[in-house]
Parts: sequence; structure tokens; C-alpha cells
Amino acid sequence: MTGFPARSTGQTVRAVLFDTFGTVVDWRSGISAAVRAFAAGRALALDPERFADAWRAQYQPSLERVRSGQRPYVSLDTLHRENLDTVLRSQDLDPAAFAPGELTSLATAWHYLPPWPDSVEGIGQIKRDFIVGPLSNGTTALLVDMARAAGLPWDVILGSDISRAYKPSPDAYRKPAALLGLDPGEVMLAAAHHSDLDGARRAGLATAFIARPAEYGPGQVSDLTASGDWDLTATSITDLARQLRDDLPRDERRDH
Amino acid sequence: MTGFPARSTGQTVRAVLFDTFGTVVDWRSGISAAVRAFAAGRALALDPERFADAWRAQYQPSLERVRSGQRPYVSLDTLHRENLDTVLRSQDLDPAAFAPGELTSLATAWHYLPPWPDSVEGIGQIKRDFIVGPLSNGTTALLVDMARAAGLPWDVILGSDISRAYKPSPDAYRKPAALLGLDPGEVMLAAAHHSDLDGARRAGLATAFIARPAEYGPGQVSDLTASGDWDLTATSITDLARQLRDDLPRDERRDH
Repeated sequence: MTGFPARSTGQTVRAVLFDTFGTVVDWRSGISAAVRAFAAGRALALDPERFADAWRAQYQPSLERVRSGQRPYVSLDTLHRENLDTVLRSQDLDPAAFAPGELTSLATAWHYLPPWPDSVEGIGQIKRDFIVGPLSNGTTALLVDMARAAGLPWDVILGSDISRAYKPSPDAYRKPAALLGLDPGEVMLAAAHHSDLDGARRAGLATAFIARPAEYGPGQVSDLTASGDWDLTATSITDLARQLRDDLPRDERRDH
Repeated sequence: MTGFPARSTGQTVRAVLFDTFGTVVDWRSGISAAVRAFAAGRALALDPERFADAWRAQYQPSLERVRSGQRPYVSLDTLHRENLDTVLRSQDLDPAAFAPGELTSLATAWHYLPPWPDSVEGIGQIKRDFIVGPLSNGTTALLVDMARAAGLPWDVILGSDISRAYKPSPDAYRKPAALLGLDPGEVMLAAAHHSDLDGARRAGLATAFIARPAEYGPGQVSDLTASGDWDLTATSITDLARQLRDDLPRDERRDH
């Protein structure tokens, strides 16, 4: 059996699970494209990139209300839809002026985000030697839609509606590991965000940072380079694949 | 969006989920091969096929103890391991005469069963137009191991440890549908066993029978042909793929 010896956990990594929004897919391009089409069809004066940024800015506060216990678990689809109302209002647009189906349809853009150029190839390479899957705050249905549209060759998809916990809550990392029959230390989280990697490490997982310096557009100021002591630090998923493979003993590699 | 109009549910099928043991993989060949190797290495006089049949014969009674509430949910791995002890004793072999790791390793053969010749190709064909996954009493980890070893190109794997219900209990069918964001009637179960299809229909799913007349070896007497009024009846998974495709309007087909 193949694997990667993780210094941080003292165990052999068997599964590499990926944060999705920002790490595997480019939410800003996908959402701004959907917003641009939505605005054009309705002659709305919106800056699509700023709208996408404002929508994403509601993401962590809305998750925090669930994580803190202020409200019971609701799906990320519900949160994205609610947050869309908030953003529309912040732009002096009344959500009630649109048919509900229109806004639900726009919110479904979060299911169909484009992958970064290296994602499909890199995940396919890592899949040769490791179980691969998303470890995302998205629902299972969202992640299935995303994988089919983007061609992400996951082995397994376990959404936040299965763990019923949002990252960086420990259960969000530990429940997928348990369902794979693995200890937390046999699972590596690959993510572009230090807060996520911090949460994974606290839950006992191995960690890999993947730099996505354009995730937030040209003005990005955080998560530009690895700031923590992660097991691996990579510039792309194909770079992560190369590093995971370099570390495998030669006789454990599957040459396909 | 593509789909299959199911007469039985009056809805459009978006996902085709498959029973695995017997429908997608040939458990009798896989288990008898593992038993043959186990017996040869220990100079045991066993008939591998009869041993495989005896092991499988414990399957439904052990599930029924969980379904009936006689014992709480335990994983199929635990049941396979317990049932192995039962079968060994029935052959006048003392399970305590083996190191526990040896028997656990033998029971893991249920994770690595070979696919029927048409399974990989047929699932890949159906995947073009439908979400595909297993709908099995196996655990998520078992189904991931099976998919990776056999090359089954599932979109999603939701094991019985997620639904925490064993077929033909209704939750075993309804919970995977709900996690896919679908109504039961938008999901089709494809299976080689009428009891499973009966359960799926009671839970509101569409149904397809796939004949596997050699599943139990040359002496098979049940499930040889379709005995129920299922939405589709096929001789293989590639035949099912053809029938699902024939039924799609031409402009909804994705030509890859």
C-alpha cells in the first residue's frame, strides 16, 4: 500500500482531501461570470467582480452563525441563497423584485465553478497513489454537480451535509476520515487557506498548503505564501502531486 | 438536463445507483479465489466455492438482526468478519486457531471483488448522462477500495454507514437520494435481485433489473430473469446503458 509519511502526524497518509472553493475551483471567475450574465439580462448596473467578492465576504460570517450554535445546521445552498439577498440589498436592489426562481438559479452558480488549470490533471495524478476527494463546506449534491461539470476525478465525495459540521470545526475533518476507515493522521488536507489548514491540524490531519495568489483577484493580500509549518507547500495541485510522488519509495509507485 | 422518464415514479431519473455485490462485482469468484489462497497457504481441505456460498448465505440473516432492531447498527465489515467465524465452525475449523489478523485480512477480500466484464464500460457509458454510484450494504471505505481496485468510475459513493440502514429498509434508499438533492423518484436502482428492487420500489425509486444468472454459480435457481414489473430489464450494464440512451431525446445526449 502506498502512502506519504507525514512528519506532523507520524502516520502514513492514504487519502488527500481538498478544500474546494479557491483551492480546486476559481469561485471568483465563476461567480462573476454568472453575475455578469444575470445583470446583462436584466439591465442591472453591477460590477460582477465586486459583487462576487461581496457575496463571498458573507460566507464566513454565515458559517460562523452555524458553527457557534446560534442557528442549527443549514446547508451551504441555503446560506448562499440568503447571502445573495444580503448582497443585493447592499447594492440597493430589492430581492423581492426578482422571481425567487431567478435568484435560486443564480445561487446555483456555486455548483458549477471552473477548476484552476492544474486541478483536473493534478488530482488525477494524486489519485494513482492516494484516495482523493473534496473536504468542503459544500453539500454532497453541490460537490457532485461541480465534479461532473469540471471533470474532477474524485474517488469519493462526502459533503458537509454528511458531517453536518462546517470547517474549521473538528468534526468537519474527522468525520470524513472515519468514513474512509482512516485515522485523522492518515488523511492530508490540501488547502489554499491557512485558517483551514490550522483547523485540520488541530483535528489531527496532515496538511499541504497550495498557493492560489489570484483567488481574490489582483488585490489579494492574504494566503499569498505558506505562513505555517505545513507538511508540504506547493504552487499548484500538479506541484503537490510531484512532491507526494517524489516522497514515495520507488517500489510503491503505480506506474500507469 | 438529461434524464430518463420513469413510468413507475412519474418523474425524470437523474441518478442511477447500483447494487454492488452480485450486480456490479462477482463476489463468488472473488471470495472463492481468496479462500483458495488462504486454504492453500495453510494446507486446509476446503472447497473454495462452497465456502464462498456458505459465507454469503450468512449475509442476509446477519443483516436481518440489524434491520429488525435485534442489534444496533454495526458495519458490514464486522458482519463479514463474524460470519467468517460461523462458516469456519460449520466446517469444523476453530477460528481461534488462526491469528485474528489472518481472518480480518481474509474478510477484507469483500473490498476487492472483481467486476463483471461489462461493469466498468457500462457504468462509464451511463455516467455521461446520469449521476452514477453504488447503493450497497457495504461501508463507504469498502466501496472506495472496491472502486479503486476494479476501476469503477462512480461519481459519488455513499455507503451504508452514511445511511446507517441496510437494504431493503426504506432509509437505505431514501437517504442517498436526499444527499444527492433528489426525490426518490428521480433515482433508479439497478440490481440483480428482486428483493432489492422490491425494497427500492416501496421506497419510491425507479427500478432496473440486470440479469446475473451466474452470480451463484452453475446451480443458480433464483433471480434468473425479470419476475417483476420493473421500469427496465437488462442483460448487462452495457445493455442498461443502451436502453437508457435509446430513451433519451436526441438533443439531450452528450456525445463525448
